[in-house]
Amino acid sequence: MTNETGDRELVLTRLMDAPPDKVYRASTEPELVKQWFAPAPWTIARAEMDVRPGGASLVVMRSPEGNEMPCPGVFLEVVPNRRLVFTDAYTGAWQPSAKPFMTVIVTFEDEGGKTRYTARALHWTVDDREAHEKMGFHQGWGQCADQLAAVAARI
Amino acid sequence: MTNETGDRELVLTRLMDAPPDKVYRASTEPELVKQWFAPAPWTIARAEMDVRPGGASLVVMRSPEGNEMPCPGVFLEVVPNRRLVFTDAYTGAWQPSAKPFMTVIVTFEDEGGKTRYTARALHWTVDDREAHEKMGFHQGWGQCADQLAAVAARI
Repeated sequence: MTNETGDRELVLTRLMDAPPDKVYRASTEPELVKQWFAPAPWTIARAEMDVRPGGASLVVMRSPEGNEMPCPGVFLEVVPNRRLVFTDAYTGAWQPSAKPFMTVIVTFEDEGGKTRYTARALHWTVDDREAHEKMGFHQGWGQCADQLAAVAARI
Repeated sequence: MTNETGDRELVLTRLMDAPPDKVYRASTEPELVKQWFAPAPWTIARAEMDVRPGGASLVVMRSPEGNEMPCPGVFLEVVPNRRLVFTDAYTGAWQPSAKPFMTVIVTFEDEGGKTRYTARALHWTVDDREAHEKMGFHQGWGQCADQLAAVAARI
């Protein structure tokens, strides 16, 4: 399934103690996304998401020092409660971004009432994958996934 | 509409003597696409198109000397008889290509029974836009558009 992009890909998976529709809701409703999308002590200053193919997404992360980092993107594929695909290659439909860095495929699979959450980050280059790994992908996305699980478990 | 990407964009437009549904058909049915998608004396050796968002497209051009140039891509947006968006940033849903070069937005507008055909090529960098222009975008795509108009007029 992922052989073609194996060396350009990073994967994170978690079994979450909430059903897929709740994990999906927490992944797509801005007020919920704000609660987990940045690894604490970073926060989300702003989250806007037009959840449909071609819809724009803008999440602005804020560092503990107050510096803001905007993360614009576009949804490519939306299958409610099942699957989300988005990329930073566009800032809107279909404005090329300054730098196409990655495409993220998120799947929400039912496992006996829990959710197998899997996020695959596909990069255009091996260098970008390596840089992302060194930036702390596993730790950062892992922490966010744990925060997401907590949000999904309480809604 | 295009200010944001003006210096990364190339545009071609033609008024074609066929209605939008025929120009659209000639743009999406492989057997018709083969008749115009390469500027003669280049030909199309192979055309496969899964015309839906996330669907893959593979067109292989053949030079007069017999050299083949594969052009893989993916459709991002499909509005029958109105609008097609595709990119070479992916080779399938959602495998990053070796080099995201451009996204093409094609619109088919009715003008009194004829079709205003507009193809906008949006590049990720100014360098790529310039390279595309030097490769002969206006002449090459212009010739293909004339060939497309001829196919659409006779189907």
